[in-house]
Amino acid sequence: MASEEIIGLIAAALTTSSFVPQVYKAWKFNSTKDISMTMYLVFCTGTVLWLIYGIRIDSLSIVIANAVTMLLSLLIIIAKLKFK
Amino acid sequence: MASEEIIGLIAAALTTSSFVPQVYKAWKFNSTKDISMTMYLVFCTGTVLWLIYGIRIDSLSIVIANAVTMLLSLLIIIAKLKFK
Repeated sequence: MASEEIIGLIAAALTTSSFVPQVYKAWKFNSTKDISMTMYLVFCTGTVLWLIYGIRIDSLSIVIANAVTMLLSLLIIIAKLKFK
Repeated sequence: MASEEIIGLIAAALTTSSFVPQVYKAWKFNSTKDISMTMYLVFCTGTVLWLIYGIRIDSLSIVIANAVTMLLSLLIIIAKLKFK
């Protein structure tokens, strides 16, 4: 594997896993008041386009990262809808 | 410009600009209780690595997106430190 793909995979692991504590916090405390719904709606749409981009430029890091991040941001959107 | 770079730039514009309403909300309402500090610390570190990755694979979309996203996530970290 090329060294840039290793950097990309570590970057992907960090930016993707970063959403886990936010999902955990929202669902544990049932509170999402300070979280911006606009942010997650726009972000989620963006990850769909990044996914297409990753497939087009054949970047494994971008594809994996954005598939998982999209799902995690969806969980935050659901929490935001559920816990006002 | 290749069509995948146009998709990448739109993706970058969306995921990057998505942080603006969160920055605005945190600084307007001086409240960050529901925002996960762990998320933004890990996320910010990840954007630094994405920046290096973008430079290495010569992707303009990734470089611009992550430079700006890193700055916006820093503003959320500062808000989180300032408004408990």
